[in-house]
Amino acid sequence: MSEKTLKHKEVIVIQDILGSNKKIAAEIRSKLEARGILTVNVMSSPGAGKTTLLEKLADRLKSGYRMAVIEGDIETERDAERIRAKGVPAWQITTGGACHLEAKMVARILPELPKELDFLFIENVGNLVCPAGYELGERLRCVLLSVPEGEDKPKKYPKVFMTSDCLILTKADLIPYLPYDREKVKKEALELNPRLKVFVTSAVTGQGFDELVDFFIASLRRPPHA
Amino acid sequence: MSEKTLKHKEVIVIQDILGSNKKIAAEIRSKLEARGILTVNVMSSPGAGKTTLLEKLADRLKSGYRMAVIEGDIETERDAERIRAKGVPAWQITTGGACHLEAKMVARILPELPKELDFLFIENVGNLVCPAGYELGERLRCVLLSVPEGEDKPKKYPKVFMTSDCLILTKADLIPYLPYDREKVKKEALELNPRLKVFVTSAVTGQGFDELVDFFIASLRRPPHA
Repeated sequence: MSEKTLKHKEVIVIQDILGSNKKIAAEIRSKLEARGILTVNVMSSPGAGKTTLLEKLADRLKSGYRMAVIEGDIETERDAERIRAKGVPAWQITTGGACHLEAKMVARILPELPKELDFLFIENVGNLVCPAGYELGERLRCVLLSVPEGEDKPKKYPKVFMTSDCLILTKADLIPYLPYDREKVKKEALELNPRLKVFVTSAVTGQGFDELVDFFIASLRRPPHA
Repeated sequence: MSEKTLKHKEVIVIQDILGSNKKIAAEIRSKLEARGILTVNVMSSPGAGKTTLLEKLADRLKSGYRMAVIEGDIETERDAERIRAKGVPAWQITTGGACHLEAKMVARILPELPKELDFLFIENVGNLVCPAGYELGERLRCVLLSVPEGEDKPKKYPKVFMTSDCLILTKADLIPYLPYDREKVKKEALELNPRLKVFVTSAVTGQGFDELVDFFIASLRRPPHA
């Protein structure tokens, strides 16, 4: 098979997958919106602090709101166990090698979700590239970028920043120990996507969590596409 | 098209790509080995410090050895510019969305490489998942894992650790500010791959670089597959 033929087939298959994914994502979105659930797709590099963020959100949200989490990972149940330890129901999807979650994986969990629910957080596989191309039925997309990852990531990995609603800078407590200009990161991200809401957070000091929780609660109350 | 058909086609196409990639990688390897070049595929999450590591290696290697770098990124020439600023020839491959380098991308650079060369470092796209599946013609595969990414990454992203020759823990200067047990990370990585050579490094303090440079020089002198 020539390289040209291969490329052509590859493109068609990828378009089929994306088209099929988009359709399933739309069905998920429609079901979850009808139930008044705010669904958030949480994306980042490995180790940027997605699970820690969800643990801290659980501490702040679980007394007043009903929250559930779907965890995506290549392997292990570790992240779902961490969330369950917070008293929040969590489902682990292990992709067994796949570099992102797809809507069909999320669809399989839907029948198991609690009947009454306010927030559904979906933690994607740790990967700043592939998850950006796949909708999962979410209303909000949040990308985390940790301070130690450096200032230059938005323009090097643009798609995830261009398709997100909020950018959560994490591990801000490490700023004193690193050459890091948070205004530069914000500026670069906002140049790609001016509608990004930016939060500067630290799970160690609690910085930025009041604003972030307020944002999620306000988003829950706001009807979709308002 | 049914999901079943789609999956089947998807598998065939991916196998075609991998098979074709393996063949091109073998050709590259054969050419580079014949010229006595040590080629190293450098992989990690975004922001783990691949380019900084290569900058520091350039400082230490360039007086006694001939070194070149191929940089892989989704977008921007930034990394190649950083390497060139060290007086080392560098080529930037921008994948325009693709989440890993493939051998055919590297093959296009080969005719441009200096005639006399000792080390060729290939910095992959920042991604702990996808690059693991694609050989690029390298003799050594090195995976970087930064301290702030946490202790639990080897078993969550096993393939890159299982297929690598060395694990370079980076940003060790941040250990005092984080809950981090480096012995735990080493143990988990070595359980997956007992032949991994592990280096604990900091580009800030220079920790671990003597050992790492010695390792690359020893690998250069050792015939392949010895």
